[in-house]
Amino acid sequence: MNPPRGMRDFLPADKARREHVLAVIRDRYRAHGFDEIETPVVEDYARLHAGIGGDNEKLAFNVLRRGLEPDDIRAAADDPAALSDLGLRYDLTVPLARFYASNRGQLPSVFRAVQIAPVWRAERPQKGRYRQFVQCDIDIIGDATPRAEVELLVASLDVLDELGLDGGTFRINDRRALDAMLGAFGFAVEERAGVLITIDKLDKIGPEGVVAELTERGVTADAVDAFAAFLNRPRTLEYHPFGEEQIRRALPEGIDDDVIANLVAIGEAVAAARGTSEVPIVFDPFLVRGMGYYTGTIYELAHPSVSYSLGGGGRYDGMIGRFLGTDVPAVGFSIGFERIVELVCAGPDAAASAVVLIHDRDVPLAELAAHKAALVADGVRVRLEQRTKNLKGLLERSAADGYRSFATVSAGAAPGELELRPLG
Amino acid sequence: MNPPRGMRDFLPADKARREHVLAVIRDRYRAHGFDEIETPVVEDYARLHAGIGGDNEKLAFNVLRRGLEPDDIRAAADDPAALSDLGLRYDLTVPLARFYASNRGQLPSVFRAVQIAPVWRAERPQKGRYRQFVQCDIDIIGDATPRAEVELLVASLDVLDELGLDGGTFRINDRRALDAMLGAFGFAVEERAGVLITIDKLDKIGPEGVVAELTERGVTADAVDAFAAFLNRPRTLEYHPFGEEQIRRALPEGIDDDVIANLVAIGEAVAAARGTSEVPIVFDPFLVRGMGYYTGTIYELAHPSVSYSLGGGGRYDGMIGRFLGTDVPAVGFSIGFERIVELVCAGPDAAASAVVLIHDRDVPLAELAAHKAALVADGVRVRLEQRTKNLKGLLERSAADGYRSFATVSAGAAPGELELRPLG
Repeated sequence: MNPPRGMRDFLPADKARREHVLAVIRDRYRAHGFDEIETPVVEDYARLHAGIGGDNEKLAFNVLRRGLEPDDIRAAADDPAALSDLGLRYDLTVPLARFYASNRGQLPSVFRAVQIAPVWRAERPQKGRYRQFVQCDIDIIGDATPRAEVELLVASLDVLDELGLDGGTFRINDRRALDAMLGAFGFAVEERAGVLITIDKLDKIGPEGVVAELTERGVTADAVDAFAAFLNRPRTLEYHPFGEEQIRRALPEGIDDDVIANLVAIGEAVAAARGTSEVPIVFDPFLVRGMGYYTGTIYELAHPSVSYSLGGGGRYDGMIGRFLGTDVPAVGFSIGFERIVELVCAGPDAAASAVVLIHDRDVPLAELAAHKAALVADGVRVRLEQRTKNLKGLLERSAADGYRSFATVSAGAAPGELELRPLG
Repeated sequence: MNPPRGMRDFLPADKARREHVLAVIRDRYRAHGFDEIETPVVEDYARLHAGIGGDNEKLAFNVLRRGLEPDDIRAAADDPAALSDLGLRYDLTVPLARFYASNRGQLPSVFRAVQIAPVWRAERPQKGRYRQFVQCDIDIIGDATPRAEVELLVASLDVLDELGLDGGTFRINDRRALDAMLGAFGFAVEERAGVLITIDKLDKIGPEGVVAELTERGVTADAVDAFAAFLNRPRTLEYHPFGEEQIRRALPEGIDDDVIANLVAIGEAVAAARGTSEVPIVFDPFLVRGMGYYTGTIYELAHPSVSYSLGGGGRYDGMIGRFLGTDVPAVGFSIGFERIVELVCAGPDAAASAVVLIHDRDVPLAELAAHKAALVADGVRVRLEQRTKNLKGLLERSAADGYRSFATVSAGAAPGELELRPLG
């Protein structure tokens, strides 16, 4: 008797921790001017399979049409898509594009959206990967300037701080710099998408692995050689502190000045907002990020406590307007809620006062209700427990559930006169 | 370009109001000792169609199996259920029963659960009725005493108070009293479920309508006559204030004393918890509530501002243990979130300070970021706006979005030296 395959129940302690983290995320993004919105968990089948979702489209859970007749079903034997009219969303980007198309007239011209909601993917379940999980996306629609990136990055670092995860930094790059770099090495335009897929594996398979895979791909051999030489060039300095000189040093010659100036401006503004001289950003010329729709800056959130990223995003100017048929500038960031929640230890109970009232069986119900109400009115969380023979076990269980003190209640005690004693 | 049929997008103002109401519900139920849990939005098809869900089972959105082959589909032509392995939940009760069966060993012996989550029903959309909506259920599992009812009712009245909806009262009845009443009139045991369905319409079709429909049903004619006489008996007193005398007066002779004493004890304890002499409960001998699984007390939350109920529930001792194969006492209440959210006007912004920073185009990005960060650090919500020709329109729009003041930012201004001016 388990939840469906690859999905989770959340018991009280886990759920409290998740809600605590969500409340912090909501509060901080709200302070930074983002507005929360919500869309239905299902979208029309055609929207989910319009080519925006990339590989995730294949992982959608689709909803069976209601009222199918036997003939409809037989006719769909070779076209299972005809059996569905709706599907569970696999990300929050397709719904955002649809939401924006539906409601654009009622939104501010620069729209800062937060979405915090579950998504579903029919992946093979494995450790740490689930078929239902929560995504937290922020997006700024309608601002083509680097202001938008700065607002996203500053707000997200603030979320980390507030959760006790100070020291976050961003790895940043720009798809235009990547493209120019590949051009400078001599990769043909039509080869570059494939080359990026291989470069994206650099962290995993190393420079030799990347060069080998590029050779296997059969792309322009001279370009592969030039790229290999660049990867293996002697470097006496790392790419930080973040600044124009370091970015230029990390790239081959001939990258557009505007692209570099844009990155430098983002770095300076993030540092100004954080009130630090050191920019919490590292330039990474080989950061790719998977999705095909990015058109400008791309970035990932790193934290010293873990080796994996705690979120990522980028500019994707071509996509939000897809359902509208017009181009709309847009930039987004998805903070890795499921990963962050694993790093945050303390739930909200650690600070709050919580009391267990252990009562004899014969305490009149009205007295018990009055005792509880008096404590609740004082701002205390209260759990009633009827006294059992194993009082020690009851107290241990209560402490494990986050309760900090207890009182015993006998018949006739006056409300407000209970003696609270510490638990555990 | 709309959300799927019968479903809603929530724009910023609506979403903020919903989250505000949810935060109050969470906070109050938590204070009263309830623990929030979460289950996946889908459950196995077989559990959703196990007969627990009543009429709602037919309204389930079912999820198409992945990897269906043409032969599988053809074979399912006369058995569409074979096309689904999962379904979207249509209530929170079936998932709770499954959750309890899955996780019982890790839960306290008296488990007070809160669930706040969307459910889906493929109903014909109509005004105020949606295919996705949020339910907020509290349940106490493992307590067969009226303590459980008292905790549910007191906590729920506290939620209403906190939302500014004071003056809530409960209509209460007991399925055992209903059954005894029908027995006293002479309805045969096997007639009673049908008779209850008709009595449930009393508010809608009146005493004459009920008697006519019972006659049509062809149930024991003498019983219908006796019931009609009872419905039309002269009453000089209403049924309140709530107390034993009033309950007895509202019922025919011969109702079990224990059932009446149980109701009286609940009323006294709720009054004690509320610190009032008047019990915020009205006895309603004709309250039925639809679901077949109730076994004891049943109740609905009423509020003077509206004619419909703001929630309902009851004791259903036979059901939570269904998947376990054992009987587990349980009592629940579902607060009508979607109805309550319509009655609550003020969102969280009404109190919070929120500022729009209107900046010239030439303010350096780093300065702008520092201005915003300084205000956010002071606890202010901040939105950036680049100055437009229509400044008046911009200010009106900001005020409509809940911002309370604004400042204009020119290049070179020092952070912390902006002049805030009231908006609208």
